[in-house]
Amino acid sequence: MEGKSFLRLLFLIFSAVLLLLLTLLNLPTRRPARRSYSSTAAYSSSRTSPLPRATTPPTFPRHPLDPLTVRELNRVRTILSSTRYSRRLPTRSTPSSSTSQKKSKVLAWRKGDPLPPRKASVVARANGASHVLTVNIETSEVTRHETGSLSGYPTMTIEDMTSATWAPLSNADFNRTIVDRGIDLTDLACLPISTGWFGKSEESRRLIKVQCYSMKGTANFYMRPIEGLTVLLDMDTKEVIHIVDQGKNIPIPKAAGTDYRFSALNTQQMRLTNPISIEQPKGPSFVIEDGHSVKWANWEFHLKPDPRAGVVISRAMVRDPGTGDLRNVMYKGFTSELFVPYMDPTDAWYFKTYMDAGEYGFGLQAMPLDPLNDCPRNAYYMDGVLAAADGTPYVRSNMICVFERYAGDIGWRHSESPITGMEIREVRPKVTLVVRMAASVANYDYIVDWEFQTDGLIKAKVGLSGILMVKGSPYVNMNQVNQQDNLYGTLLSENVIGVIHDHYITFYLDMDVDGSDNSFVKVNLQREQTSPGESPRRSYLKAVRNVAKTEKDAQVKLKLYDPSEFHVVNPSKKTRVGNPVGYKVVPGGTAASLLDLDDPPQKRGAFTNNQIWVTPYNRTEQWAGGLFVYQGQGEDTLAVWSERDRPIENEDIVLWYTLGFHHIPCQEDFPIMPTVSSSFDLKPVNFFESNPILRIPPNVDKDLPNCQAAASA
Amino acid sequence: MEGKSFLRLLFLIFSAVLLLLLTLLNLPTRRPARRSYSSTAAYSSSRTSPLPRATTPPTFPRHPLDPLTVRELNRVRTILSSTRYSRRLPTRSTPSSSTSQKKSKVLAWRKGDPLPPRKASVVARANGASHVLTVNIETSEVTRHETGSLSGYPTMTIEDMTSATWAPLSNADFNRTIVDRGIDLTDLACLPISTGWFGKSEESRRLIKVQCYSMKGTANFYMRPIEGLTVLLDMDTKEVIHIVDQGKNIPIPKAAGTDYRFSALNTQQMRLTNPISIEQPKGPSFVIEDGHSVKWANWEFHLKPDPRAGVVISRAMVRDPGTGDLRNVMYKGFTSELFVPYMDPTDAWYFKTYMDAGEYGFGLQAMPLDPLNDCPRNAYYMDGVLAAADGTPYVRSNMICVFERYAGDIGWRHSESPITGMEIREVRPKVTLVVRMAASVANYDYIVDWEFQTDGLIKAKVGLSGILMVKGSPYVNMNQVNQQDNLYGTLLSENVIGVIHDHYITFYLDMDVDGSDNSFVKVNLQREQTSPGESPRRSYLKAVRNVAKTEKDAQVKLKLYDPSEFHVVNPSKKTRVGNPVGYKVVPGGTAASLLDLDDPPQKRGAFTNNQIWVTPYNRTEQWAGGLFVYQGQGEDTLAVWSERDRPIENEDIVLWYTLGFHHIPCQEDFPIMPTVSSSFDLKPVNFFESNPILRIPPNVDKDLPNCQAAASA
Repeated sequence: MEGKSFLRLLFLIFSAVLLLLLTLLNLPTRRPARRSYSSTAAYSSSRTSPLPRATTPPTFPRHPLDPLTVRELNRVRTILSSTRYSRRLPTRSTPSSSTSQKKSKVLAWRKGDPLPPRKASVVARANGASHVLTVNIETSEVTRHETGSLSGYPTMTIEDMTSATWAPLSNADFNRTIVDRGIDLTDLACLPISTGWFGKSEESRRLIKVQCYSMKGTANFYMRPIEGLTVLLDMDTKEVIHIVDQGKNIPIPKAAGTDYRFSALNTQQMRLTNPISIEQPKGPSFVIEDGHSVKWANWEFHLKPDPRAGVVISRAMVRDPGTGDLRNVMYKGFTSELFVPYMDPTDAWYFKTYMDAGEYGFGLQAMPLDPLNDCPRNAYYMDGVLAAADGTPYVRSNMICVFERYAGDIGWRHSESPITGMEIREVRPKVTLVVRMAASVANYDYIVDWEFQTDGLIKAKVGLSGILMVKGSPYVNMNQVNQQDNLYGTLLSENVIGVIHDHYITFYLDMDVDGSDNSFVKVNLQREQTSPGESPRRSYLKAVRNVAKTEKDAQVKLKLYDPSEFHVVNPSKKTRVGNPVGYKVVPGGTAASLLDLDDPPQKRGAFTNNQIWVTPYNRTEQWAGGLFVYQGQGEDTLAVWSERDRPIENEDIVLWYTLGFHHIPCQEDFPIMPTVSSSFDLKPVNFFESNPILRIPPNVDKDLPNCQAAASA
Repeated sequence: MEGKSFLRLLFLIFSAVLLLLLTLLNLPTRRPARRSYSSTAAYSSSRTSPLPRATTPPTFPRHPLDPLTVRELNRVRTILSSTRYSRRLPTRSTPSSSTSQKKSKVLAWRKGDPLPPRKASVVARANGASHVLTVNIETSEVTRHETGSLSGYPTMTIEDMTSATWAPLSNADFNRTIVDRGIDLTDLACLPISTGWFGKSEESRRLIKVQCYSMKGTANFYMRPIEGLTVLLDMDTKEVIHIVDQGKNIPIPKAAGTDYRFSALNTQQMRLTNPISIEQPKGPSFVIEDGHSVKWANWEFHLKPDPRAGVVISRAMVRDPGTGDLRNVMYKGFTSELFVPYMDPTDAWYFKTYMDAGEYGFGLQAMPLDPLNDCPRNAYYMDGVLAAADGTPYVRSNMICVFERYAGDIGWRHSESPITGMEIREVRPKVTLVVRMAASVANYDYIVDWEFQTDGLIKAKVGLSGILMVKGSPYVNMNQVNQQDNLYGTLLSENVIGVIHDHYITFYLDMDVDGSDNSFVKVNLQREQTSPGESPRRSYLKAVRNVAKTEKDAQVKLKLYDPSEFHVVNPSKKTRVGNPVGYKVVPGGTAASLLDLDDPPQKRGAFTNNQIWVTPYNRTEQWAGGLFVYQGQGEDTLAVWSERDRPIENEDIVLWYTLGFHHIPCQEDFPIMPTVSSSFDLKPVNFFESNPILRIPPNVDKDLPNCQAAASA
């Protein structure tokens, strides 16, 4: 028992908000983004503000919300290994790169003020328990230390995941099984798959499942599953608990046609269009001050990378065109949790019910963006500072990009028709600012965009690309399939089935519309019948406002035939003509989870039971699936908090919105998926006195660039 | 009676598919689009295909689907005035600019073949009846002549509309009312408002309502309604039937803050961003052959302006990357009808239930696009050839634009995470082709985009901008409003209420997926419960395919909690692994009409009763609200056709999709609305064997332009 505990300590897996030991641990020296700028010598330097560039992360914090710096992370590591906590915690502690700052202190802070004491949130696994600590970096004190009483474990570290993929190879039975399947062990690629939680047998040890693929003949091993082979591991000891192999008769699908790398397809390349680029002859119109404060057009906000959420937007403020004042819109917005249940109840698939932020770390999986392809030429790249499992800081280069977007869209327009005889044609182009991240959670790629419009709208958009999780099958053609057979998906290629699944992305949106105390108002459109003789019309729609008093009033399932607008208003601030100032959340295309509410995955993913929720602000309620999502049992989700039915009228409230996708794969998704996107908007509604971009000028030819093909330059 | 009939003949209002007498009747000499290209002398001319440019419309047709040319329209006019029809029809006949060609003949035609006989569809009003004629231009014969037996009248002509706005001024009572309201007659701007149909009293004469505004102090007279004043006119005689004035106590809202013209705001302009442009150093990648055949990347389609639909896309075909063959996707797609009911049952508002295509002519209202603002610099502009009320052809310049769009989006991507230790980062940028039109139906502006993606997806997008239709009100602040008062909208400014309304845009989509005979398949996602002991999971979603046998099987109301995919498949063509090839319609954000099904406007707009319908192809069923929508009673709508419940399995079928918006105005919409958009997609589903853009190359720096600010060039 002592030995086992020691082993556990040794292989310990820690943080909740984490890191990448196997990546570039060095500060990046290659800076493609910067090179891209310096090569465009023809750019005019006539604008006053400096060109945005990618820079190395700041050494010192300048804003209360700034993430922990390399220096601070090192300091946290030193504090935890040199204090009395070193006795109780492994020296390899696991700080999050996020700070822990009270909202009131952040709101009170003004540029030039001294920073509030810098504190680090640390989540660690040690001695079989989950620890949550707050470390005051300046005083070297640990000001809070709790041991998790909830079910579930912290987010896996990259070390957890990578070591899990290799662990089965130390098991002779596993190796024999692989060889029996005709696969050379050197061609093996394995994936760490979170187990979810399905009952008591899975309690009190950290478990992970491993499934493997053949990478022979392709970089796209995902398309060559060794179907039916599942290894259950103890994640702490790396002990193989058991191996199930139910797929001996299922062939490994062929490698041909699966590779997607340009280098592998170079000879067959297909150039469909001439080069095209977004050009800004006077340079971009935004600056990023002090490393994290973005200023663009009429917007200002704080932007930071986060190991769990990926991107965090804070203190988003828009300038009022009437008063010139910056006005608060959103205190904080981020992707709080994802839920990706697969729709196959069989042994090798039932547990695939991923929660990518809390289990894998959405930010940890955000890979460096590819300049010119992930983001256009006018982009700025921001690095992330993350911590490895032992607390060592490292830099993820190009983790976020920021760029101005001009898609040829129209901000507003009006032509007079000849009916009135007036010769009017007024059109304003639309230019927006995009903040982008792309997380590759193993096979799948999520592209998260926050887009800011000059008319005050914020669009949150999620794109899905990457590679399907597929199932091996004996079938090579649908004509072999009986009517009664359930494929659980679509036959995409010989022996390859794309399994049906859903994606839910739940956003935390701490709206502070002109201040923290806000109300949530459902503006319901109801059919009114006219009285006999009242009107030639029999019916019309009437807007009926309902202010949500408590949380249950704000649990919303969207209904096409019982529609509402959903406003967050400031009840104590009104426009000139007396409307409460507000923002509304405008859903786009979405999907709802249809799983049984008592199904274990849906209990854990209960934050998807509604599309909209509103909770009172509570510093500890940020992660919709709970702080400890891994193997969590669902007792700390947004759904549970909301059932407390707390008052939310004229309070500091948080809006939660869940964007959903049903995905029935099709052959076009093979071997790599064209991006599918959906989005929702946060849109000003009686926030401004009138159209805030009435006075922007149209495009004129003399302002636009004079371009040559680079090759001929 | 004779005299009255003569008068009617004289003022006659005719065509269904119409024209703009008061606009530029001359061929355009100003060609900003072309100038824009010629000024960019730095463009490389290294590409083989010629640069697309705006050209004058072709003199001769080259394709069976080409619209009538100026020459052909003149010929039709001559035929109708010189044959025996001149006795029965006024010499001022009203040809549509559309041809009438059988689908089978169009499909059989190959480039180089002689064109099938050119025929013109003519809809005319004469002697109190609506005439539908087909004129064979080559033989000078009228091959079809029917007199409308249905209720309703043809689309108004521009002459109808303009003359209606002036007609009240010949009425002394009207003029007295205006002066009593304190308005100078020279400041008057009036609008022609379709009456809808509300019962027997409105039968057997063409009626229109006129409402007026003060344009004193602003070009945006729409914000200065003379509330409650409605003039009912006989549209043929221009006789004032009666005047209602119920708004004497409602002030005309102020002019201040309503003008939106740059020239009027020049001194207060607000420049938020530096110039930005989409640049293509080697020029655009598309060509438009023979005036109407668009070839871009892997797409080819026929594009033409249409007086009723606006834009018609025909014969859309995509090249298969495997075989190199062009494959049929859509025979024809266009905006068939709009329905815009306002939600105010009072006297001056109840009838506002516009059907913009059939009543006003969506294409007739498409104004010249503004280069650099409506469309980016790389756009090609296509003119429309339309016919005036007397049959005279005229040219609408820049009616449609075509451009390549690069918004910084991602076509597909995948990065390997460090878990697998593979260094992979493959990203492909997304470049699309957009076809755009902007129709200004009096106050409102509709931006219609057809966007083609290289991955086979077609996105149809509708943007709403322009100016609200507002209601005058005695209120200047919401604190004056009683709880019981119904404003029917939002107080936007002092004395101005933005009235709640809906917008529905119904698309005709004649899908021909690899051939004309297709089936409509609902792929329903159903929750399956597992049996006890079967799985740790209690539930999962299963895709259940239901092939629609008849029309009623394909009447679809979208349901978030009972979701389906909607496929149009070719049951006789399968992929290599045996899936039927198909395209699916993917709804985005939308709204459903909630009016009482027996409300007269909803009976006329019954094509909005479902979001999706499928009908068998029928040449006469193209206009969702019926051929004669104006004052129509709804007996010729899509809803009526669909009730015939005809077989649609493995038939030549037409898919109908309705995009909807509820619009509760807000102050940001005053005095001109920032664009709000929604869209739906037509997306390949097992149409290609695999991802069709697997082999496109990434962007590389050396291909991108080298730009200077134009001012410094």
